[in-house]
Order: sequence, then structure tokens, then C-alpha cells
Amino acid sequence: MNNQRLHRIGVLTSGGDAPGMNACLRAIVRTAVYHNLEVIGFQHGYRGVLLGEYQVLDARSVANIIQRGGTILGSARCPEMHHAEGVERAAKNLKGLGIDALLVIGGNGSMQGAVSLSEHWSGQIIGLPGTIDNDLGGTDWTIGFFTALDTALDAVDRLRDTADAFDRIFLLEVMGRHAGWIALFTGIGGGAEEILIPEQAYDPETIITRIKEYRARGKKSLVVVVAEGACNGGVQQVAVDIEGHGFETRTCVLGHVQRGGSPVALDRYLATELGVFAVQSLLAGETQMLAGKLGQANQLVPLREALADRNHQPPTHLLKINRFLAT
Amino acid sequence: MNNQRLHRIGVLTSGGDAPGMNACLRAIVRTAVYHNLEVIGFQHGYRGVLLGEYQVLDARSVANIIQRGGTILGSARCPEMHHAEGVERAAKNLKGLGIDALLVIGGNGSMQGAVSLSEHWSGQIIGLPGTIDNDLGGTDWTIGFFTALDTALDAVDRLRDTADAFDRIFLLEVMGRHAGWIALFTGIGGGAEEILIPEQAYDPETIITRIKEYRARGKKSLVVVVAEGACNGGVQQVAVDIEGHGFETRTCVLGHVQRGGSPVALDRYLATELGVFAVQSLLAGETQMLAGKLGQANQLVPLREALADRNHQPPTHLLKINRFLAT
Amino acid sequence: MNNQRLHRIGVLTSGGDAPGMNACLRAIVRTAVYHNLEVIGFQHGYRGVLLGEYQVLDARSVANIIQRGGTILGSARCPEMHHAEGVERAAKNLKGLGIDALLVIGGNGSMQGAVSLSEHWSGQIIGLPGTIDNDLGGTDWTIGFFTALDTALDAVDRLRDTADAFDRIFLLEVMGRHAGWIALFTGIGGGAEEILIPEQAYDPETIITRIKEYRARGKKSLVVVVAEGACNGGVQQVAVDIEGHGFETRTCVLGHVQRGGSPVALDRYLATELGVFAVQSLLAGETQMLAGKLGQANQLVPLREALADRNHQPPTHLLKINRFLAT
Amino acid sequence: MNNQRLHRIGVLTSGGDAPGMNACLRAIVRTAVYHNLEVIGFQHGYRGVLLGEYQVLDARSVANIIQRGGTILGSARCPEMHHAEGVERAAKNLKGLGIDALLVIGGNGSMQGAVSLSEHWSGQIIGLPGTIDNDLGGTDWTIGFFTALDTALDAVDRLRDTADAFDRIFLLEVMGRHAGWIALFTGIGGGAEEILIPEQAYDPETIITRIKEYRARGKKSLVVVVAEGACNGGVQQVAVDIEGHGFETRTCVLGHVQRGGSPVALDRYLATELGVFAVQSLLAGETQMLAGKLGQANQLVPLREALADRNHQPPTHLLKINRFLAT
Repeated sequence: MNNQRLHRIGVLTSGGDAPGMNACLRAIVRTAVYHNLEVIGFQHGYRGVLLGEYQVLDARSVANIIQRGGTILGSARCPEMHHAEGVERAAKNLKGLGIDALLVIGGNGSMQGAVSLSEHWSGQIIGLPGTIDNDLGGTDWTIGFFTALDTALDAVDRLRDTADAFDRIFLLEVMGRHAGWIALFTGIGGGAEEILIPEQAYDPETIITRIKEYRARGKKSLVVVVAEGACNGGVQQVAVDIEGHGFETRTCVLGHVQRGGSPVALDRYLATELGVFAVQSLLAGETQMLAGKLGQANQLVPLREALADRNHQPPTHLLKINRFLAT
Repeated sequence: MNNQRLHRIGVLTSGGDAPGMNACLRAIVRTAVYHNLEVIGFQHGYRGVLLGEYQVLDARSVANIIQRGGTILGSARCPEMHHAEGVERAAKNLKGLGIDALLVIGGNGSMQGAVSLSEHWSGQIIGLPGTIDNDLGGTDWTIGFFTALDTALDAVDRLRDTADAFDRIFLLEVMGRHAGWIALFTGIGGGAEEILIPEQAYDPETIITRIKEYRARGKKSLVVVVAEGACNGGVQQVAVDIEGHGFETRTCVLGHVQRGGSPVALDRYLATELGVFAVQSLLAGETQMLAGKLGQANQLVPLREALADRNHQPPTHLLKINRFLAT
Repeated sequence: MNNQRLHRIGVLTSGGDAPGMNACLRAIVRTAVYHNLEVIGFQHGYRGVLLGEYQVLDARSVANIIQRGGTILGSARCPEMHHAEGVERAAKNLKGLGIDALLVIGGNGSMQGAVSLSEHWSGQIIGLPGTIDNDLGGTDWTIGFFTALDTALDAVDRLRDTADAFDRIFLLEVMGRHAGWIALFTGIGGGAEEILIPEQAYDPETIITRIKEYRARGKKSLVVVVAEGACNGGVQQVAVDIEGHGFETRTCVLGHVQRGGSPVALDRYLATELGVFAVQSLLAGETQMLAGKLGQANQLVPLREALADRNHQPPTHLLKINRFLAT
Repeated sequence: MNNQRLHRIGVLTSGGDAPGMNACLRAIVRTAVYHNLEVIGFQHGYRGVLLGEYQVLDARSVANIIQRGGTILGSARCPEMHHAEGVERAAKNLKGLGIDALLVIGGNGSMQGAVSLSEHWSGQIIGLPGTIDNDLGGTDWTIGFFTALDTALDAVDRLRDTADAFDRIFLLEVMGRHAGWIALFTGIGGGAEEILIPEQAYDPETIITRIKEYRARGKKSLVVVVAEGACNGGVQQVAVDIEGHGFETRTCVLGHVQRGGSPVALDRYLATELGVFAVQSLLAGETQMLAGKLGQANQLVPLREALADRNHQPPTHLLKINRFLAT
């Protein structure tokens, strides 16, 4: 299945970083080295391509990183890639460096950048889903989601321990500006009484009604998991709305804590499988694809389709189920 | 979709216990209560059916257990269920208690018991996959696997920290008498140099050859993950075989530590989804099915098929991949 | 050393709850039962005394709680105990119940309540230091501090993972309205660049100067640990002050997450030792004492002294040390 | 307090590695650099001195290691240091490198080496207690003990989760060939029914008698924590002795897993305080001392005294307390 013209590949991690990116880099580099490819790692995402900041990655350079959070390459958002000028410069630099193919680990914005780049550059491009938000089409799961989830869940468990002592409503804000995956899975897994996600309209009256029902049934302490984007004004607004009805609240904002930590087993497995698969796909001549996991299978999906996949919604039926589970 | 003749259901946890069994019980009980069903929880698996040891489970009885390891019902292996006499007694007791349907959370042995029971009892039976071993057909994943995996992986990470200081070979025995899922995923996720599983013939010579290769390349400390059933004589025999060639080894046996701990998010999600789905399936009149997860979908598979599913092998291609990843 | 008049003792957990309170209850109850004492557990702190809400605690009632966060008795702050009327009612109720001695697990406010109570009630009283804040005199450490610390430290570690990817200043607010123990130890342990505690005047200019120095030395991402009470307006004000100088910040507010979780070994050890010691001290006839740990020894210190102990300040010399450690 | 003749110091980590050694290195290097000292880090303990394997450590070289398990310098046991010839060679090499003072992080054997070295070398020597075993005199606690403890305790908690399902006796072997600190604190913190340590004679009959008592009281599942050195033949012999009386056992051997992991807050605090203190002590002209923690104070104790300190026994009175706590 070897691709004779493939000699030097580039790799970068882009957008918000996610646990497992390092495990993915390790798999990519070692698979590439095994196939006698040279690997160039760009620093801080597309910025490294634009600024010519990179390093050669050999098998040793990715030793002992499989268990590390963050990304040894650094990540960044790169606004220049939203403009033709920036994209053209990136393409030019890749050509100048003799890069035959580029692997991009990141989320939606990073894949959008890959698509733009493919319009100005003739090298092969394959994307790998690396984001804690799990909001990318073409794959069931994204690298980093599982770890972020367990971080948020641990917070809910700890709140639960203390919740019973006091008649309070605990609000936990988790990441998810546009996608409710983390909030939904954290809320279901933590037995939260309420789960607020961007995919559902924010309605303070319904929340207040439910809080009153819980209280009427004798449940004094409640946990509400709130995705960042569930409400204009965020968790602070939710707190104001609830306190306005005479209930005492306490707020926790996990923030970037969710991006860190040693990746859990499933993120490492996903990162490793997809890293190997992406390099093998390059060798097979594939391009402009996302290397994703659908069910138990590794699958290639055209990047444009993955980006257009509006079906990759979180399973909102769980919100209805939660109505009788958190009783 | 309501099943008019369903009034009282029984539930039990059976076989080796697994993190997430409690989350599954919670989902079952609360879904059942929501649908006005009465729930009888049998203690210590089928033994509770045979001895008439049970309790009525209401919505409150499963409060605050979603995060707890073990099972509040207790579990047990029940040799009586291997004999017609025992099965008939179980059937008789279920009739005597007016049980209309039974939910069985467990692994292979427990599902075999459910099939046997269905030959002597006319009530509905649905099985739920609850075992850390992930060795059941009809489902991609079993409740408890993900938590056991992270427990074992944490051990590998800790061994890695210390490994570099000394020229030693660390042997970590993990669970899996017949199935290599835990060992395989732990080894891949932990970057282990060798992974020994029951699905591959044990060959000490190959291992020794590879150890020598690693040493020749300057890698002094190695981690070998060994499934219980990978070698007659277990990890002790592996140690003997390796030490016989002059290498120093250190052995860790995790044992039942892997069965405990608060379930990780994915086990809670799986347990919750399948618990709800199993009760809904009973209401829809289904019987003799396993409620499993295939891809993103909840699926019913006939229990006999799930048991016969010899395709539910761990992805042994990962062993080959590991040859160039752990370099 | 037996105290012939001691038959029935009461115990309560009061104020903000802390990991290890359950381990302490277990030790108290089992030591008391061993000495043939009857134990009454009041619910929700002094409120249970005022409202007559309590339960008899036998050896079984504290089984399997040593590892649990929170407190099985519930906790509460009790404003009535700040007024003579409330205290007199508490004293009357204790007499009415035939309580010979009371053990109070809590922080400063709870010990103040105990002192007030001793003015109206003739029973023996011994306090046990249970608060995550470590701000009580008469003991080196309080039950719960070590666990809260590790929770906060884990958050710093996770922020560090992600920090390197971006040029940002991460602000982590931890508990401590009046005491900087958690912030100080979290900051030192996490290698935070700045640590803001209530014991030192808040000075935004110094902070800005230092941030500029770090940046000048090429350090782009910084972690600042902020105790709740370090600045009027809390971490939000700190963020405003820093952003006012053109630096980008990200804020995390851990909040009550720090009160929960399974207690770490040292909190369980402290809770167990002090629980046993407190009961033994009652049997020896002691009263109006705090049962604390000084060095390796269990020590009784008069409650009034413990409350007056203004020397129990966090080791602020660590702030100076941190200047050259976080470089 | 400056020591004019101090220009270049060496540092090494020796013996079994311990979590927190890296945090200690960071504190040493940065304090030294702050005081304009040059730091030489020897690799793999005394072996690096003997073989001349070392690197210069500057402030950047210890960045981002405070949270890492293991030791970046590597550790080793070094039999050559038990002989005058080896010690003389070490002394000669230190002179040759122009080392003015040496800091040794390790346990008993490492401190013995330091004492031997001081007989052949005129440079200053200060030891720092770095061992998970907590078996060194002159300090209340050693760096690494707290982390190892929490690792072992987590294993007990997980065993407890699963224990209730079955009528079994779980044996957990923890480290401690000569010292019972880890076993004792793990057992107390985990609520183990039995704790076997080297400081008490192993008596299988007593254990059997107690097991029968527990069973008679209806307690079916028991956890026994066994220090490596508690019994000739280790935990395997304990298992044989118990099974010989008809009880079913399950064994876990944690082994080197206890040496790894990110250090907990208290280990990092201890490592940091002692690292700073050791360098300051060198600057003050001190030598042949152990830098330890006694109560809340940093203290210097002559190395010979620390080694001779037979009073640094674990608090075996806890074994008696455990008789009525684990009931």
C-alpha cells in the first residue's frame, strides 16, 4: 500500500489543546518512522507553519509522552488562517520545506483551516479529531473528550459529598460554548438534577419550577451542570435567575482545568489507533479526510462532510431520561 | 409501548462485580418506578433467588449510589445454576414471588444462567453486560471495563515513573483469565513494551529475543503487561522464564483492586443507558435478549447469540502495531 | 483512667464540612462503644441539638464510611448559637437527653459555639479540629486540609498541562476567606508563579510588575493561585486588575469542589487518632479542650487558647521562597 | 550567612526512588542558582559520581518537574559504596570536579554512603530524607511516604468495594521490608481488619483466631494489609497459612507501583522546604547533617544520629487501637 512519493510529513496540534494529543503524536511519529518517513513537528499549530517554527521529530523525541496532558508541540488558535493571505503563506512555507503531507490534530476550526489549506496546497492532508468538546462530525468520539469528562465528573462527585450538609443549589460550569456533550455526559454520570446545554433553549422558569418540585419532594441540595454556552451570561446569569427566587446557590467554574490531566485509557487508545491509521491512510494515498472512529472501526470521512455533519449532536434524549432518573 | 401484564420485576447482579453495576441498578429502578413497576432486588445474584433473599427497591433506595463501586445487592457466583435442579428451584421461587420479568446484570456465566432459567420459567428475561472483562458478545463494551482499564493503566504509569531509575523488567499482571481486553488496552495505553494475552500462544523465546533487542537499543527498563490467563502458571511463570535468561524482574499483581473504585464517566453512561433501555425493552415485551451497545446505538441481541459470539475478540492487530509503537 | 459518671455522649459535625469527618465519627463511635458508652449523633451540627434531631450510633452505623467524603450526620452553620437564648436551649436539650459529654467536630465557629455552650451546660466538651481551612489554633493540622489541598493541587497540575500552549495568565481561586493555608500550600506544591493570600495586603501593582518580569524572561503562561479572601472582590477583581494592563486571563473557581472527595490517608490518620484520643480524654475527665496534633503527639489545649491562638498563621516565609523557586 | 568558599555543589538521588525527589531537585537547584552556586547533578546516585556521569543543572533544567514521579537524575543502589575502595574513588572524583559540597537525597543506605564519603572527602555533605519507607531517623516524615501511602490506600478502598460481594479474605502486600510505616498507615486509613508489620512477630495462630471471631460476628470479607517484611515468605506464606484453615483468600501485590505517581501536596511541600533548607544550611557552613522536619520546624540532625535513631519506629500503639476500630 506504499505511497512512493511520500517522504516528509508535517504534523501540528491546533486549537484548544486536549489530553491525548501527545499520545497521538507518539503514534504518528513512530508509525511514520517505521515506514521510513521523516516527520516535521510544527509549533503552536498553524502559527508554526506561518512562522517557520518546527522541529524534526524522531522516535526518541516522543518517548515518555503517552501519559502526558497538553501537547509537546504547543497549540494555538491562528486567526491568519481565516484569510486567504495567511493560507497562501502557509502553503508556500510547506512547499518550501518540502512537506509532502500534513496531519492536523484539532477541532472544528483546525479542520476548517485544513480545508482552506487544501485549496492552496497540493500536499496530502488528513485531520485527526482532537478536542475535548466532541463536537466534530465524521467520528463518534474525539481525542480528549473522555478525560475532560472524568475531570468534570470528579467535580460533581465532590460537590455531592458536601451537598447534603446544606440546603443549597450547586452550579457547576463546564466547557462547551456550542456543544453540550461534556455537560450532558457529566450530568448523566453525576446524577445531576438539572443539565443545561446550548442545544436547548435556556428557560429559567422551567428550572425554577423544577427546583420547587425537588424541594417539595424533600430534596434540599441540588446539582446543576451548566455548559458555558447554555445561557447568555453563562453560569453567573443562571445563578442570578435562581437566586432571584430566593434560593441560595454556590458556583464552581472548572474552566481550563478540564483541558489538562493525564489522558484516560480510552483517549490514549483512540489517539493511538487514529494516529497509526492516519499515517497508513497517507501511505495509501488518501487526502482531505478526517481519520475518525465510527463504532469499532477506523473510518475516513471527507473533511468537508465532517465539518458539515450537523447530525453530530449530543444525545439530547438523555435530558428526558434524566427527568425520571434524577428524582 | 406498554406491556399490560408487567407489574413486578426482579433484578440481580451476578458473577464478578464491576464498577457501574450500582449506576445500572439506579437506572433500572428509577425507570421502573417511573413506569409504575415494582422492583425486587435479589441479594448475591442467583443465590438470592434460590434462598429467597431480596428487598423491595424504591426510588430512594438507589439514591447516592451512582458513583459507588461494587454493588449494593452483592454479587456471587452460583454453581447451583449449572444444574437443572437449581434452575428449577430458581424458576419456582420467581413464580412464587409473582415476578413477571428478571433483569440480570453480569458476564458470560450470568447470561448462561439466564438462558438456563428461560427454559424453566416463562417470565421475561433481559441481560445487561456487567463485567470488567469486556468478553461478552452482542455489545461493544461491558459495564466496568473502562474503570478497570484506568485502574490498570494508572499502575503502568506509576511503574514507568520508577522504571527509568533501574535496569529492570517490570511485570504487571492484570485480570483476564480467558480474555485479553484489559491487558491489551492497558498495554497500548501505557506504552508497554510487551503485552501477553490468552488469545496468543505464550512463547518465552520470542519474549526473550525482544528483550534482548530492546536492551541492544539502549532501553533498559521494560514494562510487560500480562493477562492472568496468558501463560500457564501466570505471571510467576513469566518471571521465572525471563529471570532464567539473567534479567532482573519485579512483579506486581493487581488482582481484585481492578474490580473496585468509583466508575468512570463512560461506565456510568453505559450503565445508565442500558439500564433504561432494558426496562423499556421489557415494557415492549422483549425477552431472552441482551441489552447491549453497538456503536452509538442500544441494541437487543438474543442471549444465545451473544453467548455464541466468538467474534467478540479483542483487537489483536494492536499487538502488531505495538511492535513499532513501543520502540 | 475510667470516668465513672460517663455513660452517654453526643457528637456532632458543624460548620463547613471536611473530608475525614466520617473517619473521625467512626473512630469516636467505635472507641466509645468499646468503652461501653452510648453515642448520640446530632444531625446538622448544633441545629440537631436545638431541634432534637439525632440518632443512636452503634458500631455498625459507622461501617464503611472511613473513605467517604462529607459527613453522615450532615453539617450546618447555626446562627442561633451566637445568642444566649440559642445556647441555653441547646444546654437544656442536652440535659433533657441525659448527655454527659459532647464532642464537636468543626472549625473556629464550631469551637466558639462549644465555648459558649460550656457556660450554660455542665457536661464535658471536647472539640476536634475539622475544617479544610487549617486555621484553628492548638493543632498543627486540621482534618480535611490535606484532601482539600490535593484537590486544589490537581487543578493546578491540569492548568499547567494546558498553560504552555497559550500566552495566558491562569487564575485559580481556592477556598480561604480568612486564611491562606490552602492557597499557600497549593501554590508552593504546584509551582505557581504568584500566590495571593489574605495574610498579605493585595497590591495589584506588584503583581503587574512581576508578570512583566516573567514575560521579559520569556515565561508566557503563568499560574496565579488566589485565596478567596486575598482581595476585595475576589478573583474577579484580580482578573480585572491584570486584564487592565493588557494581559489575557482565564479564571477557574473551584469552590465547594474542595470540600468533597474521599479523604487522603493523612486526613484519615489524623481523624482516627484524634477521634480515639478525644474519647479517651473524656474518659480521663477532661473538658473544654481541643484534641489536636502537635508534631507527632496528640495534645489537649484549652478551647479558649486554641481560639485565641493568633500564632497559627500559615508559613508566609514561603512566599519569599517562592520568589526564587518560581523563576 | 554566606559561605564564601562555596561555589559548586553536587546533588544526587540514591536508593529506591520516591515521589517528590524531582520537587526536591527543583528546590535545590533554584535556591542554589539564586545564591549564585553552580549545580552538578550526578546520574543514578553514587554510580554517577563513580563513573563521572553528570550534567550541569540550571534553573530551566528543573522546569515542569515538580509534579513528576521518579527522578530526572535516575537513581540506583550502589554496592561499591560499601567498600573503602569505592568510597575513595568517589571522593577523588568529587575533588577532581571541584565540588565543594554534596547533597544526597535518599534513604538509610544513601545516608550511610554519605557518612562513609565524609571520612574520605573534605567537602560539605548534607542528606535529605527521600524514601517511601519513612524509616529514617532525624525527621518525622520522609519525602515520598505520603504519596506511596495514598497509592496503597486507594488499593484498599478498591478492594473494599468488591469485598462485600464475596466471603473472602483479601491480602494486600505493600512495601516495607524492614519498616511497617506504609502498612500501618494504610491499614489504619483503610479500615483493614488486620495489619501485619515487621515490627511485630508474625503469629499465624492469632490471625486465624481473629478471622474466626470476625466470621462469628457476621463479617465475611476481610482486608489484611501485609508489609513485605512482616513474614518470612511474604504475603504468599500468609496466604498459605490462612488457606490452611479453610478460608478463601485473594492476594494483591502492589510492588513498585507504590514508588511512582505524581507526588501529593505534602510530599511536594516537604521536598521543597527541605531542598531550600539544605542549600541554606550549606551556605551557613553546615556539614554531615540530615535536613529533616520535626514538627513544624526544619531541623539539622547529625547524619550519624539520624542513622542510629532506633526511636523512629512506626506508632505501633495503632495496632492495639485497630483492634476495636476494625470491629
